[in-house]
Amino acid sequence: MPVVLGPNRYGKAETRLVRVVRDGGVHHVKDVTVGSALSGDMEAVHRTGDNAAVLPTDTQKNTVYAFARKHGVAEIEDFAILLARHYVESQPTVHHARVEIEEYFWDRIPVAGEGGGHSFVRSGREVRTCAVHHDRDGTTTVVSGLRDLVVLNSTDSEFSGFIEDEYTTLPPTKDRVLATAVSARWRHPPVAAGRGTAYGESYDEVRRHLLGAFAETYSLSLQQTLYAMGERVLNAREEVCEVRLAMPNKHHFLVDLTPFGLDNPNEVFYAADRPYGLIEGSVLRDDAPDARFAWE
Amino acid sequence: MPVVLGPNRYGKAETRLVRVVRDGGVHHVKDVTVGSALSGDMEAVHRTGDNAAVLPTDTQKNTVYAFARKHGVAEIEDFAILLARHYVESQPTVHHARVEIEEYFWDRIPVAGEGGGHSFVRSGREVRTCAVHHDRDGTTTVVSGLRDLVVLNSTDSEFSGFIEDEYTTLPPTKDRVLATAVSARWRHPPVAAGRGTAYGESYDEVRRHLLGAFAETYSLSLQQTLYAMGERVLNAREEVCEVRLAMPNKHHFLVDLTPFGLDNPNEVFYAADRPYGLIEGSVLRDDAPDARFAWE
Amino acid sequence: MPVVLGPNRYGKAETRLVRVVRDGGVHHVKDVTVGSALSGDMEAVHRTGDNAAVLPTDTQKNTVYAFARKHGVAEIEDFAILLARHYVESQPTVHHARVEIEEYFWDRIPVAGEGGGHSFVRSGREVRTCAVHHDRDGTTTVVSGLRDLVVLNSTDSEFSGFIEDEYTTLPPTKDRVLATAVSARWRHPPVAAGRGTAYGESYDEVRRHLLGAFAETYSLSLQQTLYAMGERVLNAREEVCEVRLAMPNKHHFLVDLTPFGLDNPNEVFYAADRPYGLIEGSVLRDDAPDARFAWE
Amino acid sequence: MPVVLGPNRYGKAETRLVRVVRDGGVHHVKDVTVGSALSGDMEAVHRTGDNAAVLPTDTQKNTVYAFARKHGVAEIEDFAILLARHYVESQPTVHHARVEIEEYFWDRIPVAGEGGGHSFVRSGREVRTCAVHHDRDGTTTVVSGLRDLVVLNSTDSEFSGFIEDEYTTLPPTKDRVLATAVSARWRHPPVAAGRGTAYGESYDEVRRHLLGAFAETYSLSLQQTLYAMGERVLNAREEVCEVRLAMPNKHHFLVDLTPFGLDNPNEVFYAADRPYGLIEGSVLRDDAPDARFAWE
Repeated sequence: MPVVLGPNRYGKAETRLVRVVRDGGVHHVKDVTVGSALSGDMEAVHRTGDNAAVLPTDTQKNTVYAFARKHGVAEIEDFAILLARHYVESQPTVHHARVEIEEYFWDRIPVAGEGGGHSFVRSGREVRTCAVHHDRDGTTTVVSGLRDLVVLNSTDSEFSGFIEDEYTTLPPTKDRVLATAVSARWRHPPVAAGRGTAYGESYDEVRRHLLGAFAETYSLSLQQTLYAMGERVLNAREEVCEVRLAMPNKHHFLVDLTPFGLDNPNEVFYAADRPYGLIEGSVLRDDAPDARFAWE
Repeated sequence: MPVVLGPNRYGKAETRLVRVVRDGGVHHVKDVTVGSALSGDMEAVHRTGDNAAVLPTDTQKNTVYAFARKHGVAEIEDFAILLARHYVESQPTVHHARVEIEEYFWDRIPVAGEGGGHSFVRSGREVRTCAVHHDRDGTTTVVSGLRDLVVLNSTDSEFSGFIEDEYTTLPPTKDRVLATAVSARWRHPPVAAGRGTAYGESYDEVRRHLLGAFAETYSLSLQQTLYAMGERVLNAREEVCEVRLAMPNKHHFLVDLTPFGLDNPNEVFYAADRPYGLIEGSVLRDDAPDARFAWE
Repeated sequence: MPVVLGPNRYGKAETRLVRVVRDGGVHHVKDVTVGSALSGDMEAVHRTGDNAAVLPTDTQKNTVYAFARKHGVAEIEDFAILLARHYVESQPTVHHARVEIEEYFWDRIPVAGEGGGHSFVRSGREVRTCAVHHDRDGTTTVVSGLRDLVVLNSTDSEFSGFIEDEYTTLPPTKDRVLATAVSARWRHPPVAAGRGTAYGESYDEVRRHLLGAFAETYSLSLQQTLYAMGERVLNAREEVCEVRLAMPNKHHFLVDLTPFGLDNPNEVFYAADRPYGLIEGSVLRDDAPDARFAWE
Repeated sequence: MPVVLGPNRYGKAETRLVRVVRDGGVHHVKDVTVGSALSGDMEAVHRTGDNAAVLPTDTQKNTVYAFARKHGVAEIEDFAILLARHYVESQPTVHHARVEIEEYFWDRIPVAGEGGGHSFVRSGREVRTCAVHHDRDGTTTVVSGLRDLVVLNSTDSEFSGFIEDEYTTLPPTKDRVLATAVSARWRHPPVAAGRGTAYGESYDEVRRHLLGAFAETYSLSLQQTLYAMGERVLNAREEVCEVRLAMPNKHHFLVDLTPFGLDNPNEVFYAADRPYGLIEGSVLRDDAPDARFAWE
């Protein structure tokens, strides 16, 4: 009964890159983590340890740093496209490359008078992400995203009318706290050539719509909120054809204060860690092109 | 341009369950974390917040605890199968269920003389895992696994003969430390009916073979070691038809001590955190049945 | 050789409390984690398990929630003082109480038109902290603080003129990136009675001065920066008598790009994880009152 | 109102060192993390950035690796003593050094037949620790320890007879699960000269007694268990004069299954994360010598 090699990939994960650009005394900081994963003619290396087809992961790390100097790091999607295409186009044994990048935001520290411009404080807001694939058939896919965008509505959220089976004890509620840490990824239609999309502006707008839909949706279920967030992005941003969201329900339980002679009119909550609800879903255009390997 | 709902699921993640079984004065502890994710007729809840098709995640948590009392928790795969089938078979709106369980190991604390049997110390070895799917078409898939099995070979590992491009600086080496944290998942052929497999014994044997192949493979690349580990399991265990492995290369860099007038004959290493190589691959039987949703 | 009980304390750690206050349609969120630790007549419970002197940790958790409803949660220092005094004053066996609180910041999500006011996004900036002690001798000590305030100067930092021994290989540098995650705690003089200090305003100002001194100090060493930050706070804020700072040196190493025919004019950096320098120091007024147990 | 420099120290934290020793084909692995913190004539560096008294943290890292090659790494306490004395004795500006080391345990992977001896699996049991101080007055203090020793008694634990105030709702219990993650540190009397103590054997025995006392104590409170553990060590090990323990009460709550028509005879538990009780205490000999800076 012969044994065969199935899907595989290898690469360098979590290369930490900080790039400083100087505009006179005013500096700009780009703080990212890059991961690459390659696949292709890898039968020999698995079966016999013959590395002739292997571009070392150490080289992939070096490439990240060298490209940062040669090409700069504008939008993370553009930098990921550069890298992914480079691996496939420069190495015949590499048939497919995936490059994933995370970006962390910094704010400028205000400085009185002269001399400012090179001091920063990490903003701590969500992390921006992207995942780019390039295949030797010429297809490039781009998925942008964010994670750890933690949001909370202190009212305008209900949960009732659900199935009640023999294991159900949850009472329906007409007013609850709804909190979640949004992980969102949105797919751009295949990139024909070059750098058509203004990814930075797109990011800001998608983020704004995600927050807006979360805030403005009177929620009967977290699924409804999730769908509204995806739908809002698709309606507002034509450069996006699909949105995938993962939203843990960060439960805030109303504390029972009656043993202490106190009422609790939706005021004092216990924020629980585990277990938590987890809602995952995709919202896409009816005519969205095939995703191929974009989500892998 | 209409917007549609794509793939989605919801459930309760990370329900912590500890079950104590008493055999006279000798107790047994089962320590697991359970996650469930359901999908089915979920169009309405996403579009309008109508929860009529939704079995609350709170109910899923309750079901875990009630089932632990009613049915016990023998092997985690068996418990996951019970739960997954229950959701699909009891709720017409639930068409598909995935149940994932992690198990943590405890050792008995030896006690001198009488009175022992109820004291335990967490072993801290790897975490055992499983992921079970059940679909309303009657198919059940079972994937067993482990994570955080950290292993190291202090010799018998080389890396040379790789591609050298303009960004390559890594020198070839004929003797290095090879260390990784193994994440392995192995797929069992579809379960026809009932509980055919002795999952506990299977786990112990698969683990033994993974360790054995890691230790006994003279390694020319981490890919070769990965493949050898998967192949060994398939050759030894007929109840497994595919093995998927993810193995970070936990780099141990030889420290250059020449500035201090010292040599370093593969003795003193710096264990780095990031970046790290990451090798992922699947090894399967030529005639393995279709995986369907087993890996999702 | 008799064995005796040394210093001890017990309490409830990490009670998660979220309080929502409604001002019509405009809501306010307070998100904190509370820990309490009590000590006193605890000889019996340690030696024989007699719990007659023990206020259960579960009761301490309840007290946090009940007090949040009864007294509200204005500044975390004030809430901590209330709790600490309550434990000591209500229980004769409790001679000393320490209450520690962390606060997480949320921003309001802007909503177009009517209906906003109850939607928030976690800001992710630093965490605000406090530690309050109350002793039955009537003394209350208050230490305010913050942690995870991550800052970076992309220039105006040198490091040279240090000791060079036989194990020194570091070259001096006249221009480096200086980055750290500031943990700061500042001590207020003993509180005579009541709530004299406007802790919220004090926090904002101390934070502003810490950032300002970090940004405006031309740094010859991280110690110099640390001292300047503490000194600036003491000079500006009379309600503070001592500042303690812990600042890891988050190394940003310039990547050597010469193998690739590239220079690197302080532009491309590798942000390392471990090891890291760690600088800790206290700056205080010459006439600062004795700290007693404030820092314990 | 002049500002002065208070207590301060600086050093290199978390230097990761793995040392491989070869005894023919049989290898031995030592896996540790080292931190050092120095203090002394540091007024100038804080006030003006004059680094003339500063041994760079980078040099401290180098020293760890060079010493590992020159002196080997036997017991972590001995290695820490070597380093701490080196810094104080070689640098006039360094008056005091603290060296902290953590050690991670590995087991040998059994290999059939010939060729084994260089393959290891991380055991995942607790982490061994030590903290050594050396002062220029000639005093060396040694504290050994462990952390993350997770233990559980499934019976023989009660909690009752405690204070009941207006915020108490906890019912007394005569049978509960008692679980904790032990952090223990034990102080050796000052080291006169050389390496008098067999720290490895001492560690194994202290660990054995901690586990034994945990398992064999019928517990009326976690404080009682803590004290019994410390007392047992002091009675059995004359090289130890004080034991400090920190033990979180990892609550296991009995799940109420009555809504499902099920009883729950101490069988099915929910293992909670937060909040948790936290019990800290010291047990020492009546005639223990002064600890001086040992615990700092």
